[in-house]
Amino acid sequence: MHMWHSAMAMLLQVEPLNEGSNWLWLAVGISVLALLTVFYFAQYVLRSDTGTEQMRTISDAIREGAEAFLRRQYKTIGILSIVLAILIFIGYKVSPRNAPLATKTVIAFLIGAACSGFAGFTGMYVSIRANIRTASAARTSLNRALQIALRGGAVTGLVVVAMSLLGVGLLFFFFGGLATPREVPYQVVGFGFGASFVALFAQLGGGIYTKAADVGADLVGKVEAGIPEDDPRNPAVIADLVGDNVGDCAGRGADLFESTAAENVGAMILGAALYPHFGLKGILFPLVARAFGLIASTVGVLIVRTDDKEDPMQALNRGYYVTTVLAMVGFAVAVHYLLRDNWWFLGSGIVGIVTAFLFVYITQYYTEYRYRPVATIAKASTTGPATNIIAGLAVGLETPALPVIVIGTALLLSYWFGLKAFEGTTIVGISDYAKGIYGTAIATMGMLSTAAYILAMDTFGPITDNAGGIIEMSNQPEEIRVKTDRLDAVGNTTKALTKGYAIGSAALAAFLLFSAYLDEVKEIVRGRMPAPEGTGSFAGFSFNSVNLASVPVFVGAMLGAMLVFLFSSLAIRAVGKAAQYIIEEVRRQFRENPGIMQGTAKPNYGSCVDIVTTAALKQMVLPGILAVGLPIAVGVIFRYFTGFHVAGGVPMINGQPINLIGAESVASFLMVATITGILLATMMNNGGGAWDNAKKFIETGQYGGKRSDAHKAAVVGDTVGDPFKDTAGPSLHVLIKLLSTITLVMAPLFV
Amino acid sequence: MHMWHSAMAMLLQVEPLNEGSNWLWLAVGISVLALLTVFYFAQYVLRSDTGTEQMRTISDAIREGAEAFLRRQYKTIGILSIVLAILIFIGYKVSPRNAPLATKTVIAFLIGAACSGFAGFTGMYVSIRANIRTASAARTSLNRALQIALRGGAVTGLVVVAMSLLGVGLLFFFFGGLATPREVPYQVVGFGFGASFVALFAQLGGGIYTKAADVGADLVGKVEAGIPEDDPRNPAVIADLVGDNVGDCAGRGADLFESTAAENVGAMILGAALYPHFGLKGILFPLVARAFGLIASTVGVLIVRTDDKEDPMQALNRGYYVTTVLAMVGFAVAVHYLLRDNWWFLGSGIVGIVTAFLFVYITQYYTEYRYRPVATIAKASTTGPATNIIAGLAVGLETPALPVIVIGTALLLSYWFGLKAFEGTTIVGISDYAKGIYGTAIATMGMLSTAAYILAMDTFGPITDNAGGIIEMSNQPEEIRVKTDRLDAVGNTTKALTKGYAIGSAALAAFLLFSAYLDEVKEIVRGRMPAPEGTGSFAGFSFNSVNLASVPVFVGAMLGAMLVFLFSSLAIRAVGKAAQYIIEEVRRQFRENPGIMQGTAKPNYGSCVDIVTTAALKQMVLPGILAVGLPIAVGVIFRYFTGFHVAGGVPMINGQPINLIGAESVASFLMVATITGILLATMMNNGGGAWDNAKKFIETGQYGGKRSDAHKAAVVGDTVGDPFKDTAGPSLHVLIKLLSTITLVMAPLFV
Repeated sequence: MHMWHSAMAMLLQVEPLNEGSNWLWLAVGISVLALLTVFYFAQYVLRSDTGTEQMRTISDAIREGAEAFLRRQYKTIGILSIVLAILIFIGYKVSPRNAPLATKTVIAFLIGAACSGFAGFTGMYVSIRANIRTASAARTSLNRALQIALRGGAVTGLVVVAMSLLGVGLLFFFFGGLATPREVPYQVVGFGFGASFVALFAQLGGGIYTKAADVGADLVGKVEAGIPEDDPRNPAVIADLVGDNVGDCAGRGADLFESTAAENVGAMILGAALYPHFGLKGILFPLVARAFGLIASTVGVLIVRTDDKEDPMQALNRGYYVTTVLAMVGFAVAVHYLLRDNWWFLGSGIVGIVTAFLFVYITQYYTEYRYRPVATIAKASTTGPATNIIAGLAVGLETPALPVIVIGTALLLSYWFGLKAFEGTTIVGISDYAKGIYGTAIATMGMLSTAAYILAMDTFGPITDNAGGIIEMSNQPEEIRVKTDRLDAVGNTTKALTKGYAIGSAALAAFLLFSAYLDEVKEIVRGRMPAPEGTGSFAGFSFNSVNLASVPVFVGAMLGAMLVFLFSSLAIRAVGKAAQYIIEEVRRQFRENPGIMQGTAKPNYGSCVDIVTTAALKQMVLPGILAVGLPIAVGVIFRYFTGFHVAGGVPMINGQPINLIGAESVASFLMVATITGILLATMMNNGGGAWDNAKKFIETGQYGGKRSDAHKAAVVGDTVGDPFKDTAGPSLHVLIKLLSTITLVMAPLFV
Repeated sequence: MHMWHSAMAMLLQVEPLNEGSNWLWLAVGISVLALLTVFYFAQYVLRSDTGTEQMRTISDAIREGAEAFLRRQYKTIGILSIVLAILIFIGYKVSPRNAPLATKTVIAFLIGAACSGFAGFTGMYVSIRANIRTASAARTSLNRALQIALRGGAVTGLVVVAMSLLGVGLLFFFFGGLATPREVPYQVVGFGFGASFVALFAQLGGGIYTKAADVGADLVGKVEAGIPEDDPRNPAVIADLVGDNVGDCAGRGADLFESTAAENVGAMILGAALYPHFGLKGILFPLVARAFGLIASTVGVLIVRTDDKEDPMQALNRGYYVTTVLAMVGFAVAVHYLLRDNWWFLGSGIVGIVTAFLFVYITQYYTEYRYRPVATIAKASTTGPATNIIAGLAVGLETPALPVIVIGTALLLSYWFGLKAFEGTTIVGISDYAKGIYGTAIATMGMLSTAAYILAMDTFGPITDNAGGIIEMSNQPEEIRVKTDRLDAVGNTTKALTKGYAIGSAALAAFLLFSAYLDEVKEIVRGRMPAPEGTGSFAGFSFNSVNLASVPVFVGAMLGAMLVFLFSSLAIRAVGKAAQYIIEEVRRQFRENPGIMQGTAKPNYGSCVDIVTTAALKQMVLPGILAVGLPIAVGVIFRYFTGFHVAGGVPMINGQPINLIGAESVASFLMVATITGILLATMMNNGGGAWDNAKKFIETGQYGGKRSDAHKAAVVGDTVGDPFKDTAGPSLHVLIKLLSTITLVMAPLFV
């Protein structure tokens, strides 16, 4: 141990127990290294064979469609970001007390937005090129196909986590974090908000696109024209394949970019509260732990290999286990060097890891047909679509129960570990609350330490899905289809697991983020008040109260829950509207060009891609603006409900009351929106997944198999589940994180 | 004014400004008078003609089925009540500090349960006899049919409100409320809990019964055998008609019995907090205002008459307007005599009335096909069941938005009126919070003052529905069917409106009830602590904090929201399971007795009624136990999370910390469960109603009319909506009120 210790110290060229600024450079260095690895993985993918001419034609169409969508989407998001940046700037400038922070906040916001965009773009750039190469490799070696798909996915995974780490690390440095470490974390929150803002629109736009194309293609192709899925005669088929990339790949990438960015910032803010004990190291711990997680994930990706016999899922799981173990080792090293060997914190980290595992397991239980829930839905399909839907909704409504219990236990346990970690030490200026909350923050870090690997597995999904589509459309022999189908099935599983993981981490991160919000409000108030006479400290004041018994706070909570329902409604309706355009276009093509159905004329794929692109971008704006506008409106309006506080609820500094009712109402808005969001998103993700697999179960020959009445009923359920699990559900993950960061950034307006 | 004042005083034989015990007798007297009116209405109905022999056969079958169900249901509920009563008794007795209250609480609980049962039984006794008389009257006069149905419904309405008033009033008296008015309201809470407990099972059991019978009859009759609705060849048709009575009539009656009982008790507790200002009169105000509302409702019912040309809905609306105006006058009189002419409180009352109106209007917007929401669902039906379901879910998720805004505004406004009412007066021992909350309590009273009339309109629904069924099954001429169809259509509207009203009042009452809970906890703590030295008062202690920033409190909130989802899941699944039994039984009868379908043999209606009775009663137990058990478990377990409080969050008496973390976690459990419950129930009620009416809209000839593909799709939506709007949604109203009363009663276990 001692040798390793010295070697590490030499490597860093620092004294082992110095104030720790070198740890910042270590984290930054590792993220740069990760970006180099990304370059290597990208080269590995791009060097591979691109198959036949016919395959390239299809792949090119997908690539062009996806790139066109991303270009136009980023343009729209860019405009919205600039508008918002101006609004933030004005909002900060009007009050002389916030004015000094205006520029830093806007810069952080724009950099966060740009990094998220860059990460999404790079990830998708490689994914839409990896699909054809995976397809081509499947013609010779399953192992090679698996490796191309996973390494293609790893580009997204690594670039997302590395960019968020690099962004936060460098902003911390340039904003002077090494000189004034306790203040700078608050100034970096704009980065998280920029990331969430882009993530919201990326996930919404991508989610609407993918399901509008899917539902539209299915309804008019399978139902009206009676042609199979992925049939090249369907003009919407390319739009459908494009959708897999922009929704699952770019969307989920933005989602997890946002998670890691916001969690980095939030944990640093909480670390700042522990400054008297850990110094700079407590603030840098999240970055270092995350950096070690990057290394762990890279190793995990590199060791994955399989042969033609093994279930590819086992190979991916091996990689996951290795990543997990290495991440834990890295965590232990970070605790050793940065948190003074306080092993209670490792306990918190392990709580996070176990939470991730349990979420993965619970998601499987509710979405795989080996278990009761999916089996009930399949059985209910025999009495028609109505009972299929009723059974699916019953399963969906049941699914949040276990995840809520897991999250609740994880929060309580990690909080307790945080308290235990400081037991016996008496440190002036650190509250018990700050100690416990730091424990929950570390659990979140534990949960997110494997994020890059999980994301690689997730992006594996759309790549193999697309590979299957390319094989199908280019009429390859049956034996190759079997291979890509095996990979595709694994991809479906990994996509479902990632959604469970994303929501679990969002839930855990949310508590961390609103603790950071409370801290932020406290700092704002302290900054504004004249220093108390004599003492020069504000020991008497802290803002830890979000009192639901207060009427405005309760009303804020109701509005938060309402936002979640209304946002979901808008997202689902957007899919319906956008799908309508596709349906009309496909009908038009079939009508005007009868050669398409006879296979003598090529359909116009491009027009479908164009139409769904325009429609999805148009439809994402309203829910997006609602999500951003409502919390700000609550905070600004509820400030005027002074005198509505409960008795003794008005905080005082120097005997002077402070009006925090706006800030408090926003906090309850945020917390109850988060709770409702977790429940509704879990219901939608798992309910949708269960419907999907009930259909697949029947397709294996149960209850009459394909083309039976039960199958028709199950198809209805699957179609209903689509906007649940791929649009509204995932958008809700992002929504709840956006609410956390928006309130952090806008806090000065609420006080 | 002065003359009226003196006349009133003479009538009551009291001095105008005495301590007010005579007001108690006035309220009790009016409720006895209301019960006499019930007797008159019942006589009016029972005296009427019972039609032909064939009609009587059908009606007898419905009556027997409903009575058999009610008998068995009450037996089950009776056993559960006794078990719970024993548990409450033991729970109170184990702690020496609660022991003195054990007997009173158990007595109040059992009387509440018995009153609720009696009210439900009487209401249904008349309803299932009014149906055939309405049908018979429809053969000669629409006015007479309308009056029989409404007065039959008024039996339920008046008996429910009068029994809850009488029960609370007499318990208050017998528990010594005139001697110790500040303590006794807390001892009456058991009455509210008894009422909620019965209501939960009545609504759950009735809701499961009605929808299992409906879904079962439809699936096997309409879909499999291809016979129309209400066809006498369908063995489940009587069970279906029985269901309307046990679900809509007995279930909703129990629901509103619970609302008025719990609201009476809750408002009295809050009135106790204002004792220094208003004395006994502030505590009795809720009872007096409710009593005046009873008179207003009776007059409203009596003036309703129509002719053969007018839309019967207009006649019912006239009665509603008269009731509303009279209730407001009664409210003003009560404010004048009991609240010292403080007209701000009348303002709060008007807020409640306006809230009721807005809820009725919003419900219409979302469920009538004149407006956008239903029209979208109907249009979406043209592309099949999947798009119908997606559109319906989008509408459902949208529906809570406006109600939440209305409730939020009503709470803030009535709270502000409460503060205003005391402006300028300085009263020792009354906090601003108590003043404001009393304002919200009065708004709730305003909303509930027309409850008896609303309930009469609601029960009108199943009576006319049944009347239509009897006319249909006894092959009456077309012109009579047209008349009963007109009444039936009105009944559908009134049923939907009542659900909106019930949830609005539940939402408003909920805030009142958890304020009462906080007060109750405060009193428990004060009762247990030794009186502070010297002062003899606990001025330094109040329990007004439900701090979501505290981890256990947040976890409690998550669990509360989870309960709502899980409970809904269980309720919906129960319908599916119970329907399965019906389907199998009907299939068996068709198979074993082919004469049924040919019309040569009579099906065995009784066996279907038996089977669904057994199934519904069995299925109601699990969700019921979950609803009762989880909040108690949270309160008892979370007591052990001491040390998890936020800084400064531990309340002190005489420098001694008090462990309130259990009580606080239960409070947030309750509040967030309430918020989630309101949202989910609104979504389910209105979504279900919208699906139903989208089908009816298509049946008017839109999109191809009956038997078109669009209609088939709309039937799927309607079937999915059934357990939403008639089982899970209404059961959620009761659930959230049950949570309020259960925490009130069990509070001593959480501290």
